[in-house]
This record gives sequence, C-alpha cells and structure tokens, in this order.
Amino acid sequence: MVTTDKPAYKVIGTRPIRPDGIDKVTGRAVYGADVNLPGMLYGHMKRSPHAHAIIKRINTAKAEALPGVRAVVTALDLGPDPAALPDLSKNILAGDKALYRGHAIAAVAATTDLIARQAADLIEVEWEVLPPVLDVREAMLPGAPLLNPNQHTRTPSGPSENASNVVAHAAVAFGDADKAFAECDAIVEREFSTKMVHQGYIEPQSATAVWNPDGQVTIWSCTQGAFPARQNCSAILGHPVSKIKVVPTEIGGGFGGKIAVYLEPVVALLSRKSGKPVKMTMDRVDVFEGTGPTPGTSIRAKLGATKDGKLRALYADLAYENGAFAGSAANYATMCIASGYDIEHVKLDAYDVLVNKPRTQDYRAPSAPAAAFAMEQLIDELAIKLNMDVEQLRLQNSCKPGTRGPMGMPHQAPGHEECLRQAIASPHYNSPLEGPNRGRGTASGFWFNVGLRSSASVSVQPDGGVSLILGSTDIGGTRASLAMQLAETLGIPYEEVTPTVVDTNSVGYNDVTAGSRVTFGSGMATVEAGKNVIKELSARLAPTWQVPVEDVEFEGGVFKSKDGSKSGTFKEIAQAIVGRGPGLTASGSVNAGFLQGGGFSHAIVDVEVDPETGKVTILRYTCIQDAGTAIHPSYVEGQMQGGAVQGIGWALNEEYYYDDSGRMVNSSYLDYRIPTTLDVPMIDTIIVEVPNPLHPYGVRGVGEPGIVPPLAAIANAVAHATGVRQTQLPMNPRRILETTSGK
Amino acid sequence: MVTTDKPAYKVIGTRPIRPDGIDKVTGRAVYGADVNLPGMLYGHMKRSPHAHAIIKRINTAKAEALPGVRAVVTALDLGPDPAALPDLSKNILAGDKALYRGHAIAAVAATTDLIARQAADLIEVEWEVLPPVLDVREAMLPGAPLLNPNQHTRTPSGPSENASNVVAHAAVAFGDADKAFAECDAIVEREFSTKMVHQGYIEPQSATAVWNPDGQVTIWSCTQGAFPARQNCSAILGHPVSKIKVVPTEIGGGFGGKIAVYLEPVVALLSRKSGKPVKMTMDRVDVFEGTGPTPGTSIRAKLGATKDGKLRALYADLAYENGAFAGSAANYATMCIASGYDIEHVKLDAYDVLVNKPRTQDYRAPSAPAAAFAMEQLIDELAIKLNMDVEQLRLQNSCKPGTRGPMGMPHQAPGHEECLRQAIASPHYNSPLEGPNRGRGTASGFWFNVGLRSSASVSVQPDGGVSLILGSTDIGGTRASLAMQLAETLGIPYEEVTPTVVDTNSVGYNDVTAGSRVTFGSGMATVEAGKNVIKELSARLAPTWQVPVEDVEFEGGVFKSKDGSKSGTFKEIAQAIVGRGPGLTASGSVNAGFLQGGGFSHAIVDVEVDPETGKVTILRYTCIQDAGTAIHPSYVEGQMQGGAVQGIGWALNEEYYYDDSGRMVNSSYLDYRIPTTLDVPMIDTIIVEVPNPLHPYGVRGVGEPGIVPPLAAIANAVAHATGVRQTQLPMNPRRILETTSGK
Repeated sequence: MVTTDKPAYKVIGTRPIRPDGIDKVTGRAVYGADVNLPGMLYGHMKRSPHAHAIIKRINTAKAEALPGVRAVVTALDLGPDPAALPDLSKNILAGDKALYRGHAIAAVAATTDLIARQAADLIEVEWEVLPPVLDVREAMLPGAPLLNPNQHTRTPSGPSENASNVVAHAAVAFGDADKAFAECDAIVEREFSTKMVHQGYIEPQSATAVWNPDGQVTIWSCTQGAFPARQNCSAILGHPVSKIKVVPTEIGGGFGGKIAVYLEPVVALLSRKSGKPVKMTMDRVDVFEGTGPTPGTSIRAKLGATKDGKLRALYADLAYENGAFAGSAANYATMCIASGYDIEHVKLDAYDVLVNKPRTQDYRAPSAPAAAFAMEQLIDELAIKLNMDVEQLRLQNSCKPGTRGPMGMPHQAPGHEECLRQAIASPHYNSPLEGPNRGRGTASGFWFNVGLRSSASVSVQPDGGVSLILGSTDIGGTRASLAMQLAETLGIPYEEVTPTVVDTNSVGYNDVTAGSRVTFGSGMATVEAGKNVIKELSARLAPTWQVPVEDVEFEGGVFKSKDGSKSGTFKEIAQAIVGRGPGLTASGSVNAGFLQGGGFSHAIVDVEVDPETGKVTILRYTCIQDAGTAIHPSYVEGQMQGGAVQGIGWALNEEYYYDDSGRMVNSSYLDYRIPTTLDVPMIDTIIVEVPNPLHPYGVRGVGEPGIVPPLAAIANAVAHATGVRQTQLPMNPRRILETTSGK
Repeated sequence: MVTTDKPAYKVIGTRPIRPDGIDKVTGRAVYGADVNLPGMLYGHMKRSPHAHAIIKRINTAKAEALPGVRAVVTALDLGPDPAALPDLSKNILAGDKALYRGHAIAAVAATTDLIARQAADLIEVEWEVLPPVLDVREAMLPGAPLLNPNQHTRTPSGPSENASNVVAHAAVAFGDADKAFAECDAIVEREFSTKMVHQGYIEPQSATAVWNPDGQVTIWSCTQGAFPARQNCSAILGHPVSKIKVVPTEIGGGFGGKIAVYLEPVVALLSRKSGKPVKMTMDRVDVFEGTGPTPGTSIRAKLGATKDGKLRALYADLAYENGAFAGSAANYATMCIASGYDIEHVKLDAYDVLVNKPRTQDYRAPSAPAAAFAMEQLIDELAIKLNMDVEQLRLQNSCKPGTRGPMGMPHQAPGHEECLRQAIASPHYNSPLEGPNRGRGTASGFWFNVGLRSSASVSVQPDGGVSLILGSTDIGGTRASLAMQLAETLGIPYEEVTPTVVDTNSVGYNDVTAGSRVTFGSGMATVEAGKNVIKELSARLAPTWQVPVEDVEFEGGVFKSKDGSKSGTFKEIAQAIVGRGPGLTASGSVNAGFLQGGGFSHAIVDVEVDPETGKVTILRYTCIQDAGTAIHPSYVEGQMQGGAVQGIGWALNEEYYYDDSGRMVNSSYLDYRIPTTLDVPMIDTIIVEVPNPLHPYGVRGVGEPGIVPPLAAIANAVAHATGVRQTQLPMNPRRILETTSGK
C-alpha cells in the first residue's frame, strides 16, 4: 500500500473481521429467497417467447381456473396510467408490446411453485410477431424496425424530427478536434465492438411482499437500494411511499444489476389481489433474459499525438445498446473515456440506442470498460507508433488536479499519476516476460464515483458500546467500513460498534449502494452522526462536570474539561451518562452531491496465447488503484480483485449470444462462462492513497474503477503476444484463432 | 368522558384504528412462539417436583446420550459467579436448592420438542427434600423453615440479627397514630387475606436465541421490555450488553408478568453450547408454576374517624408473599394504601416474605389491590358506623393537590375528588338496586405510576409521511397512542404516521412497558423527537426561504415566515426539504422520573349472591378513572375494562391452590378459572380528565388503577347483599356458603 499523505488513524487502515462474517459463512444470513412467511404463496412470471411482438390479447381464464392459483396479474393491474415511471412500469409487466424475449407479460401466485409455473403456461397470449433489431448500428439506421414509434432522439438541439431507436445523442466537444488532428504526428483510428454481458451475481433476484388491507405494504428484497426500490414501487403502484416498507435482505452480489425493481411491484400486486404473502424468485434463465445486463457497444475512435508524446486530439463515436428501454450509457461514456488524460481537443458523440434485448442496467463503472477498451488500445498503439513506453506516454499526459474531468468539472486530487508511477515502479512491470506466445499489456481506467444522499443513526448503549443503524445495502463490506469510520470518530475500538442494516422505516433516506458511494457518502453520514453523538454527550456532560458546554473538549476518544481537571474516555462517559440516564440516539444525513472526484485504476497483465486452441491464459495480473484512504485495505483489495476478475471474464469469454430471432442461446452458467478460480491467477494489488479532500477521512470510491482497465489491458497483452490487435470482444478461442490464423 | 380542562386537540381524543390491528386479526402478527429459524432446536426445561429441596447432584449423562439432543445446561453453565443479579440468576436455573415446585433445574435443546421433553425426563437429580413453608405469616415466625439461611431482614434500623424469611420491613409513619386512634369516635379493625394469583396472560412465555461464535447474541422474546431483558441477560450471562440484541415480538398479554426473564438467558446458553438457534416455549403448567404470579397477602388494618367523618388515623400491618426470592411488594403497598386520602396519622408496617412458591412479579398496580381490599372495606364499614354515605365520606377525606402522597411527595393534580364527584353523579350510583340478595359496593384505587426512561426516533419520509421508531413493547395500543401524540405535535393526520416497534439496536433505551408509563414517558420522548424534527426542518427551511432560522415559525402544522410572506404545511415542507434533500431522522430521549402524579380509579358494582350455591353474579359495573388526558379514549376504556375484569376474577375465583407439599393443584385454565365474557357484564366507563402537569399533553398512566378497586368494591357489595363482611379471597361459592350459612 502506498500512501502519499495520511494522518495517524487508530482504526482506519486496519483489517478487522466483518460483522456479518459468521452469519454468511454459517448460512445463517437471510438472502432474498430465504424469506418465508406463514401462508405464503409462490409467484411465477409469464414471459415473452418473442423478441419483438405486439400483445393482442391475454387470456388468463385457464390459469385462474387451475386449483391452487390465488391471483393472476397483468399490466392492467398496474392501472391505466402507471404514471411516474412508464418505462420501468412497462418493463415490469409489458402492456401492448413485448420488446425482448423474456419480457414479463403476466404473473401468477399459487400455493406451490409448481402450480404457479403450470398456471403461467396456461396463460394464453395472442401475438403479432414483429421483426426484431439486435445490432446497435443497424438499429440506428433509418428504416430499422422501431421499438417505440413515439421515440424521438434527444439531441443537443432538441428532439429529432423522425421517430428513431436512438434515444439520445450525447455530444461533448471542447477545443477543435478536427484542426488538432491535422497537427498531429501520429494518429490511430479503429472500430471496436463489445457484447452485452451480465453482472453475473450468484443470487438470483427474489422478492416477497405482504399487502395489508389497511394499505401497509411490506416488501423484502435483495435490492441494492431499499429506499429507491420503495420509491419506484410507490410510483409504479401509485401507492404512497410512506405506506411501503422495504426490508433489505442480504445480497448475493449486485454490481449494478440489483438497482432496478423487477419482481417487487409484481409480488405486491399479487399479494394485494390474493390477500396472502407472495414470494417470487427468478431462475438463472429469468436472470439472463429478464433482468438488466450491460450494453454491447460499437465504438469508433481516433486519437492523435505530436511526436513529443503529447496527446492532442480525441474523437469517438460510441453507440451503446440500451436494450428495450432508454438508459444513460452514452452520457456515462462521455464522462469517462477522456477523463484520465489532459487532452485539449476532444469531440465525443455517444448514442443510447434501443434494441430488442433486455433493458440494460448498470454494471460496475457502467459504460467505462467498453470506452476504455477503445481508448487504452489506441494509446497502446500510439506508444508503439511513437516508439515510447506506453506507461510513460500515459504519465506524460495524465490528468492533474484541475484538469478538466467529467462534465467539465476540474479533477480534485486525482490519483492517475500516482497509480502510473506505482505501476512503473512495480515488481510486475519491472519483471521480464519470457517465453513464446506471451505478451504484457497495460491499461488505465476511470470511474467518476458519486456521492448522493445518505443517512445513518447511532445509538449509544448503556455499556458504552454503540449501535450503528444503516440504510445502505452492504455489498462489499460496508458494515465494517462504516463501523470503522464511526469507531475512528468516537475514538473507540472497532469491536465496540455493532452495525445493522435496517428497513426503510427505521433510518433516514439512503440512495442505492452503487456508484462506489457507500463508504464515501454513507461514511460522511456516519461521521456526522458520530459527531452529533459527541455533541450531545458533551451537552449532557457539562452540567455533571459543572462546566459550560463549550469547555467540554473531545479528542482522540477522550472527553476533557478545558482546565484539564476532568476527563474520561468515550466508554466511561457513555456509561456514566447513558448507562444511568436517558438513551442517546443521534443521526447524520448528507447530500454528498453527484460527482465525487473519481477513482483511477490501472492494470498490468501478462498473457499466454495458445496458438493451437486460441485459449488465452492470464499468467499474472496486477491492479494498482487509488483508494483515497483505504478504510479496510482487505476490502479495497477485494474490490480491486473482483473488478479484475469480472473484467477478465468480459474480455475473454462472456457474451449474450443471440440467434437471429433474438433468442439468447446461452442463458445458463454452463454456456455463459464466467471465470472460476481455476481461470485466474492471484490478482496482485497495490493500493495507492491520495486522500479525497471531499471526505473527512479522504475516502474515494473503490468498487468500480477496477473493472475498467482489464478489457483493454488484456487486448493489449494479446496484441503483444500475437501481433494481432483485438477490437472485438470476447477474445474467446474462436475469435483468437480466426484473427491470428496464418500469422 | 368528563373533561375539566383541555385544549382543542386535533388528533388527541379521537379513536383511530390501531396500526397493528390488521396483523393481529389476520394472524399475521409474530408472537413469541411464531419465531422460527432454519436449523432451530427446541428447548425444554427440567423443573423441580419439590417445593423445597437441596439439589445434591444432577446427572445429565443419559439426557446427553439421547439421539437428537444437542445441548444440556444447568446452573453451572451460568459460571461460578453469575454476579450482578444472583436472585434472578438462581430463579432461572436453580443452583444448590430448589425453592418451589416448578423451579427450573436444567434445560435441554434437541432437534424436536418431543426429544427435548424426553431428555429432560432423563436428567437425574438427587434431592434432599426439605419441609416447605407456604403461609406468609407462618414463614415470618422464628423457627420456620428458611428458604435462604443467609437472609436477614432489611429494617429501618439495619439488618436483623437472625436469619429470617422476612426480606424487608418497610415502615412508614407520620403523625402519631396511637394518639389519634384514642381521639377517634369510630374505629374499624380487621384481618384480611388474599391468595397468590396469576396475571393470566393468554400467550405463554417463549424465547428464541442465536449465539454467534463472534459473540453477537440475538434473542427474540415476547417481553414487556426488550432493553431491560437485554440488561438482565447481560448480567446473568456475563456478556456485554451491547453484544446482545433483543428483538421484541408481539406480546399476548403481560400485565407485569413478562418483565422478568425466564427463558431468554437459557436459550442463549443452549444456543452457545449447540451452535444452533434454540427456541423454548412454556406450556400452561410452566407458566403457572414457573413464572411470577402476584403475592398472596395477610393484612391487619385499623382505621379511625371522628364523628364528623374526618379520617384521623390508619394503621396497617401488611405481609406480602415474595415467593422464592425477594421482591418489592411491601414498599409498593405503603405507597398506595393511604394515598387516596388526607389522613394525618398513619403508621404502616409492610413485610416482604419468602415462601416456597414461585418468585412473584408485578401484576397491574402490584400490591395495591390487596391493600385497597383492606382499606376500602374499612372505609365502607366506617361509613356504616358513622351513618354516612360512603362516597361522601371518601369525598370529604379525599387527597387534594398538595396532600402527602406516596413517599411523602405532594400529590400533583390528583383526580380522586373528580372521580368521586363523577361517581356520585353517575347514572349507576343514582339508580335503585332492587331485588333480594343484591348489594351495591364501591371502592377507590390508587396507583402511583412511573415515568422512567424512554427514547423514540422519527424519520421523515420523502412524501411527508413520518415513521415513528419505538422501543416500548406495545401491549395496550401504544403504537397508536404514541403516533397520535406525534401527529398532534407535527400537526398532521394520524394516518401519516407509521409507528414500528424495533429491536434494541435500532432505537435508544426504553424501560419496561409497565407502571402505566408508555403513553406517558415514551409519549414525552415521542413529543420531543417531533419537536426536534420541527427544529431541524426549520433550520433547513430558513436558507430556502432566505430568512433567519428564528423567523421560521411553526404552529398548528404550518410553517410560516415571521413576516407572513411564506408558509407551508408540514407535508408540503417535508416533501420539499426531505423529498429533494437528505433524509431527516430526529430522536427524543427522556428520563421521565419515578413518581408521575399517580392515577385514581373508582368502581361501583352491583352483585347478586345466590343463597343456594354461593355464586356471586356481577350485575352491573362502572369504572370511573382519571386519564389526565385520554389520548385514545377507546384504549383508555379498554384498560379500565380490562382492569375491572381481572379484578373480578381475582375477587371471585382465582387463586393458586396448594396442597400441603407445596404443589399447585389447579395449574390449568380448566381449574384456575379466569372470567370469560359470560361471567361479566359490559363494564361501563366514565373517563375523567384532570390533565397531568408533568406531561406536555396532560397524560396520566391508565393501565393499572382500574384493577385496584374491584376486590374491595365486590366485597362491599357482597357484604351489603348478605350482611357478611368478606375478608378472605377468593369469594368463591364455597367461601360464600361457608361464611353466610345460617345467616
């Protein structure tokens, strides 16, 4: 771990055991599908067998007549105007049109899962099948089959005249790219494509609901955000948000894929109709076909430099599949592709495009890996053309504090430079790579990170221990990383803090666990709550000590009277004041804003390419990443390693493989191959710490940047091993053989 | 309802539907025994068959060897020094001595309830049986078998020289009673006795625990106080209080009987030993024999007045069974017996006495009903002697503001006078009572009520609804009565408040739901939390309105700028500020003190006594009670009616019936007869409202006073019907026949 500047923390930077560890390793933790209620019914979804088809009629009579069936719902049950969130609403239950294979059409609740499945089969749908459009560039063409005939393109100059599958055109330009390219000594230009891939969380979506006749609705869900899920259910169901309680269960992976609601409003409707608790759990085919993978892309990019190695101009045209409904991939892409570097002349045109595939969702640094796949390969090629070390080229052009970052905002203490320095100095980069068919590649990645809104409460216990009451789903160890920040703030051992993630009625609002924001934003709320505890304890202590409250000082876990005559540790004072007096609960709530300084990650990877089979083996992989301040270094390393492994899968194997009718033909983990422990080496990590001035302890989001570099880094390594540039993912054996045969 | 003075409230005084109503009538509510966890074991207790016996040896080998048994624990598992609470600890698992039949000796956890019961039978105990002492006066005699040879009597002048079953002698004296009696024109003196009775809650005790290897313990319990239960488990188990989380389930009645822990520490131990969740649920015999009924008593009392009807002197000697371990009944008795009246010369000697019966516990206004059974009969007799209307006698001598109350504290706005006036003016009191074998009786009752410590948190939802986070077990509708106080404070409809009772990690400290304190004390915490919400909203509103925070005013649910230019309802402002900004959670914590003004109840009862069978039929019953302010009048009436019905059962039928060996021979609801709906008429209620100056809305505890008068009122009615004074309870047919035969 490399630290540029850090105070002497007592708890921050240590590696304590996670509070939820025992429950998780003993199987005691309650995940989505573990929720069981007396009298509970089982739900099952009827899904579209067509990628694009008009629903002319749905007949549920036979399903309803099946013994054991207690309720059947369709989009009609959402009401005539599901108002606030029409896209989300139509994705949950298609109304007049199915837009992808697997699109939910109707749902059944029955006394057993088997009956629910049988009943779903008995629902009759009269279809008018339409031609699907599956390729992002084809979908952009005039005359392509339109998913939504009322969709006009949002452009910088207003909506387009004609209806189009292009939802939005995000255009970013600064400087004069055309002129700058003319002044460049070296230019590289290529077309890239990546395929739709899935987050690959192990736990399928599951939701359970009870709709009480008095209008109180309780929903259990393995969601990344109980509060936004509640908000969405409220909008979709037209039911007051404060009458809905969402209870977050443990979550078996999310990576962005468990932000949107799918089953939650439907089980609520089924419960309202049946009067019983209803649970619905997806199977793996449902997860692949019916949830939100990340877009495939088509990217055309061009990068130019002067011979002294100064990056001068970048142009990129980035088309992102949105799937069936509008997303925000294009905008994110423009925020990330150029943000690692100080390039004066940039022109970006990015497109959100509808295709007959699932409505896409976030997946760890959404949009950035594909953008980096293009950008970081161009840099690699440019270095070769300029005959420079690629890391030196990056370092020379790296963004610095004040460099224009995403949305034109100046970077705050960015860590790209420091990551590059550490990469250049690393044992890995300085080791020889010997042997035939081997290559080394490097790449950088940037994710902008968000702050958003968080709340936390702290309750002081009579023995001086504290309970930390959280509303952010704990995906990557945030119970620990937040408890550690509270312990640091209160000057007590980590073990004295008991963190709990509670339901939406029991703590203030928390945005989703996403955007690498929880240790950052919920950390800020936690620190604020801790400070409010100190404030309140001081106020109660003052009369006991017979001093004015402003004479009660707190530092390093010790209360002191200004004159030094009285003092006590947090535990002592808490026992005296709370142990013998009224309880003490204090809260912190923050709006930590949108952009939060961003995070950089860098990868060095060695590969060996088997010329016989085309198989790419990862020999060695090092991830270097700026954590701002690593609250719990093991979890930071875990995030870095997790991002790397997911990127390796994306680079080498994973893809949604469609037939011409729009059917995904590999919707199982047998055929959709995510890396196993046998496929990857130990991922080495180097944590860089350039404290983030926006957080009291310097925290920077660490969950996402690690997945950005591997696609490009591996492509660069393969290019160096084989002499062939890989512009299409996945780089599976077939593609390697096809592109390298004869070389 | 009679109100002496009350502001115009919007929500307080209405009768909305309870938030937990649907869950309770549909069976969806989770009570103690409804907790089920995967892999859960079932616990069963081995109990003493002897009322008094030395445990020479416990052999658990055979039990442990039974297939399916996972853990067996005895007092040895509590550790050599269960320190902080030795009595409670020994009551939970007897160490060297069993002090009553049903005393827990050991516990088993097994894969099924049946195996656990079989294993308990296989535990071999070698006993040395001792003679039991079952009568409270016999137990006080020198030479009585001693339950605890190390027990010396606490007296005003220090501990007694010799060991004794008398735990404490509480002596209260003011004035000169001996002298005053000499000056009296009329004196009545009698001996009374009452029997041990049970609270008769419908739901038996049940507790479930998981002890995680990392030391985190979770206990589910149908307790009246999750926080004190946690504190007690911590002390008994020697485990830090902040490592224990108690989750309160719904509670099927408590009445004081679910304050103490019985199963909680034992299931925790069994879980620690077995590594599995363990649940233990009592059956009705366990409940009768193994929990804490209320003491039987022997009371000698003497009351004197001058001929003008001025009560001059009271003497009482009150002996309370404590059961196996020390209680505080004697002290409570001295606080209640004389507190309804302004009597100058009082001498009280009250005794806590050990007998070989279960460790007694609180039961609705503990100690007061037996004390009133004596006091209010003496007043009735005195009125006859003085040839006065008994209600006028009471009114003439009733305590007034400033009269010496319990512990010598002056009464604050006591409502006894107003209750008596309402009784005298009531239709019931003014109706004729005709027919043979009929009689009318009246009596007053006092309970001192407590405040203690409470916390509550309020979270404002984005739509302007609010979540009320509570830590007080809801026995009698306090979710509603607290939500109503919050709605009144925030100026919003009751329906906008969603109250939830949460676990001990999720809200600040709350003392037990007892002492009629929740609507009072937790109400104060709730109102404070509400005020803190207004404060915080005002602070956030000020910059939006561009006014100084002190210019933001709030009244009647509306925020206004001082100059009147800006305004908004709570809902509008909450939506604007919290809906678009960070969450808002605020807490209130209070120490509402010990004595809280006390509550008075008065009863008028008409009976008919069947001369053939001795059966007493309640013809008509009116309860008049001071509620201070009736937050939810229906629940106040429910408390009054519930107290009356329990008092009727106590008066007429209920008793622990022991054989000479100390075995309770009627430990089932077939043989221990509590009143059913067929046994009682509709209980009429008159709510009196004399606001309590100690509470922001004038609330007075209402749960307990209603049980105090009925014992005496019915005895007075029976005396008037039959001409025979009943000094012993229960007044069951046998006793009526025995005492009235030949009359």
